[in-house]
Amino acid sequence: MYTHIDTEIIDALKAIVGERGVVTDPDTMQPYSHDEFALAEIAHMPEVVVKPADVEQVAEILKLASQKSIPVTPRGGATGLCGGCVPSLGGISLSLERMTRVVEIDTANQMAVVEAGVSLSDFYTAVEEAGLYFPPHPGDEGAMIGGLIATNAGGARAVKYGVIRNYIRGLEVVLPTGEIIRPGGKLMKSSTGYNLVNLIIGAEGTLGVVTQAVIQLMPKPAVTRSLIIPYDDLQSAIDTVPDIIQAKIQPLAVEFLPREVVTITEKMLNQSWPCSVGTTYLLIILDAPSEAEMDKLSEAVAGVCLDHEALDVFVADSPQKQEQVLGIRSKIYEAIKDHNIETLDIVVPRAEIARHVARIQEVQGEHGLWLPTYGHAADGNVHTHIMSARLEGGEIVPLPEEEWKPRLEKVRAELYRDCRERGGMISGEHGIGLVKKPYLSYVLSPEEIALMRRIKQAFDPQGIMNPDKIF
Amino acid sequence: MYTHIDTEIIDALKAIVGERGVVTDPDTMQPYSHDEFALAEIAHMPEVVVKPADVEQVAEILKLASQKSIPVTPRGGATGLCGGCVPSLGGISLSLERMTRVVEIDTANQMAVVEAGVSLSDFYTAVEEAGLYFPPHPGDEGAMIGGLIATNAGGARAVKYGVIRNYIRGLEVVLPTGEIIRPGGKLMKSSTGYNLVNLIIGAEGTLGVVTQAVIQLMPKPAVTRSLIIPYDDLQSAIDTVPDIIQAKIQPLAVEFLPREVVTITEKMLNQSWPCSVGTTYLLIILDAPSEAEMDKLSEAVAGVCLDHEALDVFVADSPQKQEQVLGIRSKIYEAIKDHNIETLDIVVPRAEIARHVARIQEVQGEHGLWLPTYGHAADGNVHTHIMSARLEGGEIVPLPEEEWKPRLEKVRAELYRDCRERGGMISGEHGIGLVKKPYLSYVLSPEEIALMRRIKQAFDPQGIMNPDKIF
Repeated sequence: MYTHIDTEIIDALKAIVGERGVVTDPDTMQPYSHDEFALAEIAHMPEVVVKPADVEQVAEILKLASQKSIPVTPRGGATGLCGGCVPSLGGISLSLERMTRVVEIDTANQMAVVEAGVSLSDFYTAVEEAGLYFPPHPGDEGAMIGGLIATNAGGARAVKYGVIRNYIRGLEVVLPTGEIIRPGGKLMKSSTGYNLVNLIIGAEGTLGVVTQAVIQLMPKPAVTRSLIIPYDDLQSAIDTVPDIIQAKIQPLAVEFLPREVVTITEKMLNQSWPCSVGTTYLLIILDAPSEAEMDKLSEAVAGVCLDHEALDVFVADSPQKQEQVLGIRSKIYEAIKDHNIETLDIVVPRAEIARHVARIQEVQGEHGLWLPTYGHAADGNVHTHIMSARLEGGEIVPLPEEEWKPRLEKVRAELYRDCRERGGMISGEHGIGLVKKPYLSYVLSPEEIALMRRIKQAFDPQGIMNPDKIF
Repeated sequence: MYTHIDTEIIDALKAIVGERGVVTDPDTMQPYSHDEFALAEIAHMPEVVVKPADVEQVAEILKLASQKSIPVTPRGGATGLCGGCVPSLGGISLSLERMTRVVEIDTANQMAVVEAGVSLSDFYTAVEEAGLYFPPHPGDEGAMIGGLIATNAGGARAVKYGVIRNYIRGLEVVLPTGEIIRPGGKLMKSSTGYNLVNLIIGAEGTLGVVTQAVIQLMPKPAVTRSLIIPYDDLQSAIDTVPDIIQAKIQPLAVEFLPREVVTITEKMLNQSWPCSVGTTYLLIILDAPSEAEMDKLSEAVAGVCLDHEALDVFVADSPQKQEQVLGIRSKIYEAIKDHNIETLDIVVPRAEIARHVARIQEVQGEHGLWLPTYGHAADGNVHTHIMSARLEGGEIVPLPEEEWKPRLEKVRAELYRDCRERGGMISGEHGIGLVKKPYLSYVLSPEEIALMRRIKQAFDPQGIMNPDKIF
C-alpha cells in the first residue's frame, strides 16, 4: 500500500528542504524512532527524517508524500508517552524542530502567534517578557506547541483555566494533500462554519500538520500560593477535593501525592519536602487578585481540609518556598522513571476519583506490581504508573521481565475497565497514539469509532498522515 | 433528490411519536416556517412538524428519513437570526420542544445533564436552585439548549468566561443514519480520539440532532457590579477597551451602546437610564470575590476610562440599580426590532473594533440607512443592525421598501469586506444559517469550505440533515 523511500524520493526531499534538512544516517535517525514511552518494542525507525523550515516546505513534502503514498509522521518535542510520533510504518519522520519562530506577541489583542516547533519553555519566556500569562502547564517544558495541540495537552492548572484547547484561537495546518488552511484567527468567538480548529486539536497529527498557532494569553494573576496538606490516608485526602470545589473555591491546581514517591524524589534531589508527617499529600495551588483575598482563600481551603482529618496545613507563601515544593513535585516522574513501564492517563468524573484510586490500590495488591499514582485530583485526571518493580520498605525492588511482563496487560485492562465503569476516558491529556489503541473500544462505541474513521477519510483519503495511530 | 411527505410517511411518523406529535395543519405549522430573521422571503413551510418525546423517537425518525431521503430540519427555541431552523427544502421540521427534562444537576461534579428542549430561562432557574452558576448569557432566554449548542452561542459574558463551547462536556447526538452516539461525559479533560463534541457544537444541526448535553457549571461569583461610562464620542469609548484589558482587568462583559438606541428604549419602557450626558456609553460588568476587591477593581476601571475622556462613571452597585440598567440594555433589540431588517454578527480581533465601527459609520453615511451598532466590545463581536429606516432628530423614520431593499446587500457586502480585511469572521455567535451563506467565501478559503463539505459527507452521506444551510 505504501511506497518505500528510494534515492529518487530522497533527492526530491533534498530539493524541497535542502541537504541539511534530510537525515538518512541510522545513528542520527535513531532518536526519531521513539518518544518517552518506556518499552523499546514500540520503537520503529523512520526511512528518512525531514526537517522543513517553513509552511511551504511542509506543503511540498506532503504533496510529494501523497503523490507517492508515503507515510508521514509529524514530530515535535517527542515528550509524548504513548508513541504518537513513532513512525511505526516507516516513511517520513517530519520534524518541526526548525520551525521555532515566535512570530508575534500581540499585546493589544493578547494573542501570540508561534510556529509549531517552539518549545513550551521558550513560549513561556516570550509570553512573560511581554508581561502576559499562558495558564496551562503540561508537565514537560521540552514539549513543542505542535505536540501540545496534537494531544490537547492539559496539566495541573486545567482545573481553573482549562486545557490547551481553550487557548487555541487559530491554526495554520497543512492538509495531507499539501493544501494549506488557516482556520480561526485572533478571535475570541466564531460561529462561521464547522470548527476545524477544534477538530484538529487533539487529533494527534492524523488529520494534518499544524505549522503555526494563534494562542490566547491572559493577564497574570496577582498572587499565587501553594498549600501542602498531609493526611494519614489517601481516601481522606481525595475525599477533601469535591468539598473544596463545593465550597465554591476554584483552585488553580489540586494534586495528590503519596509520601512514598515524595521520599524517593527527596533522596534523588537531596532536598527536603517541608512536611514530615502523613502518608499522602494534597498540593493545592491558589491564585487571587490580592494578598488579602489570598489569605481568605487559604483559610477557607485549610478549613475544608482540617474538616477532612488533615494533619496540618503547610503554606508556601514565599517564592522560595513555592519553588522548593513545586521543584520536588516536578521531579517525581524523573525519580521513578527508570522502573516505570507506562504512565496511564485515565480521566474520570471528579467525584469518582476516590473510588477509582481505591480500585488501583486493590489491583496493586492483586497483581504485586507497584502502581504509584498521583495526579490532578480536581479535574479527575489520574496518572497511575505501572512499574516493573515492587516497593519494599520505601525502596524500589526491580522485578525480572518474566515477572512484570505478563502482569502489565492485566493491570492495564483492569484499570481501563474501572475507568469505563465510572464514565471515564482512557486518556485525559496524553492521547491514544500507538499504546492505547487496543483499548479505545473500551470507552468509545463502534459508531463513534466508525465516525472518526470517516472523518479521517475526509481529511486523508490515502491514509498517509500519521497512520497506525488512535484507531 | 428528496422524497415528498405522503400519507404513508405521516402514518409511519405517527407510529413513532404518536398522533399529538405530528402536525400537518398549515395554520399550526406556520410558526415553524421561520425564525427571528425579519424578512418573510426566507420563510418556508415544512411538509410536516414532528415532535419526538425522547432520543429513541428521534432515532426512529432519522432512520425513516434516511431510508426515504427526507430533509430533516431540527428546531429549538427558533430565536435564531439567520434562518438556521427554516425548513427551506420542506420535509420534516423536527421540533425538540417536548424534550424539556433537566435530567440531573450533579453538584458533586458541578455538571448539569439536560435535554435539548430545555429553555435557557428554565436552565438558569434549575442551576440557581442548585446553588450553582452557568456563566454564558446569550441574549434571548427563550433559546433552547440544543440551539445554543448548534450555534455555539456566546453573549456578553464571553469576555471573561468564554462561549457555550467551553461548558459543553458531553453530548447525546442522533446521527443522520439514526445511530445514537454519546461522546464526552462528565469530564474536565479528554484526549481520547477526535473531539466529536466540539465538532458538533456550532455545526448548526447539519451533522446530527443534539438530544441531550452534559454542561459544566461553576460556583457563582460573590459580587457583580455594573458600571456605565458616558463619552462624547464613540471612538474614545471603544478606544478605552483594549486599555482596560491591558491593565490586566478581566471584565465579565464590556458593551458599547450609542445614546440614540438607549433613548428609544427608555421611551418604549417608560424608564430612565441613569446617565443623561454623553452620546455613547460603555456598560462594563465586573465580578470579584469580595466587596473590597470589587471597589479596587471598579476604581481601576474608572481610572482607565477617565484617562480616555470619559465624562463620568456611574456605578450600579445595588441589585436594584443593576437590574434597571441591565433591563434597559436587554430591551434595546425589542425597541428597534420593528424596523430592523437584519442583525449582523461580525467578529473582529478586539483591537480592530474601533476601526471597524468607524467604517460602519462611513457606510451609514454613504448609503443613507440607519445602522445602529452595539455589542460586545471586549470580545470583538459587533452587532450592526441594518434598518429599513433613517434616524432623524432621535426619531425612527421608516423608508419604503424600494429605497432600503437595493441598499441592503450593498451594506452587508461592504461590512463583510471590512470584516475580512481586519481578519474577522462573519459570525461570532449566531451562525451562518441561510442568510449568511452567500458570504461564507468572503472569510473562508475554498479549501476550508471543501473540507467542511467532506466532513458533512462523512456524517450525512445522503444530505438529509438540515440541508441548504452554512454552505
